[in-house]
Amino acid sequence: MVKTFYLEFHTQGRSSIVNITEEITKLLKKSQLQEGVLNINCIGSTCALTTLEYEPALVKDLQDLAERLIPASFYYHHNDTWGDDNGHSHLCSCLWGTSLSLAVSNGKLEVGTWQQVVFIDFDIRPRQRKVVLKFIGE
Amino acid sequence: MVKTFYLEFHTQGRSSIVNITEEITKLLKKSQLQEGVLNINCIGSTCALTTLEYEPALVKDLQDLAERLIPASFYYHHNDTWGDDNGHSHLCSCLWGTSLSLAVSNGKLEVGTWQQVVFIDFDIRPRQRKVVLKFIGE
Amino acid sequence: MVKTFYLEFHTQGRSSIVNITEEITKLLKKSQLQEGVLNINCIGSTCALTTLEYEPALVKDLQDLAERLIPASFYYHHNDTWGDDNGHSHLCSCLWGTSLSLAVSNGKLEVGTWQQVVFIDFDIRPRQRKVVLKFIGE
Repeated sequence: MVKTFYLEFHTQGRSSIVNITEEITKLLKKSQLQEGVLNINCIGSTCALTTLEYEPALVKDLQDLAERLIPASFYYHHNDTWGDDNGHSHLCSCLWGTSLSLAVSNGKLEVGTWQQVVFIDFDIRPRQRKVVLKFIGE
Repeated sequence: MVKTFYLEFHTQGRSSIVNITEEITKLLKKSQLQEGVLNINCIGSTCALTTLEYEPALVKDLQDLAERLIPASFYYHHNDTWGDDNGHSHLCSCLWGTSLSLAVSNGKLEVGTWQQVVFIDFDIRPRQRKVVLKFIGE
Repeated sequence: MVKTFYLEFHTQGRSSIVNITEEITKLLKKSQLQEGVLNINCIGSTCALTTLEYEPALVKDLQDLAERLIPASFYYHHNDTWGDDNGHSHLCSCLWGTSLSLAVSNGKLEVGTWQQVVFIDFDIRPRQRKVVLKFIGE
């Protein structure tokens, strides 16, 4: 079986981190998948998906880390191409990654108690975002 | 077909790197999967999965890199939340990633000769760890 | 259904970035997959797969970023093991990652308009490379 769902939401950009675990859990129930894999993709080249203990202090640490490794204020050639000043957003996206695959067993997501699924919007302005969920298995 | 296996092992934390390729190869045989995908997840928010040429010098280089990019001694807000001093461990986990999907063809894992599947425990203390393997295909 | 295809190509190494989106789109059509997941792996421990807006300036930015985070000129223990001076190539590979899973809906890859699938060759010399595509679903 293959079932498809979409999540759509609005973010403020600038490394906004959205905890999508609860929505995923609801859609997993709806999908009736018992054993298999949930594949998640974010659509866009300035966002990312990963797992994180979603608590405010760590959210801040992750935002600081992105800024430390790939500072918004550096010179990026990409900013000359479109003039949209989000070269660092693209680089964060391609480093953190835009796909995530999670095991489903007995109808439940196999993640740790302190491990949430998060969407990161690295872009520099508010945006409407879309995430694709593919439930594959039995 | 969907088949599920678990690997459980003990690590010393502090960027311990465990080569789980041989165990995966054994479980692949046991699963009898011929064509498909093996999805691997580590459970927890201070560990990661990736591929690496598993040899002692490169293992050391990877540990040095984690410490250079995300130093344990930096100030992390997360450490104020729980007082467990592993803010850097969480950040390493979310950057390296906790999921990995590998092709299986003719009953064999499609990896290079010098490419092993490794588990990294970024936490700061010894821990018991669990990895989920989902074999999907024919 | 599980269908397997391979892409093979030559690169110049030194962070060459190859846009493989068009080849993937052709093979997706050939696979006749309508709903499912495309799993992609690069074979080797000095290369990576990710998504990126593929335009020359951003390609240059990504190459600069790899060099800034993991400089080729640093000392790496791995270089003492084989003397092949590609310690940084291995580290880039294991950080960016060698697997990618993308949703397929209505026979189309679910990626953004400005989001291409790219292969990065972090090695230090020209190489022949191989990527495995597994189409899974209906």
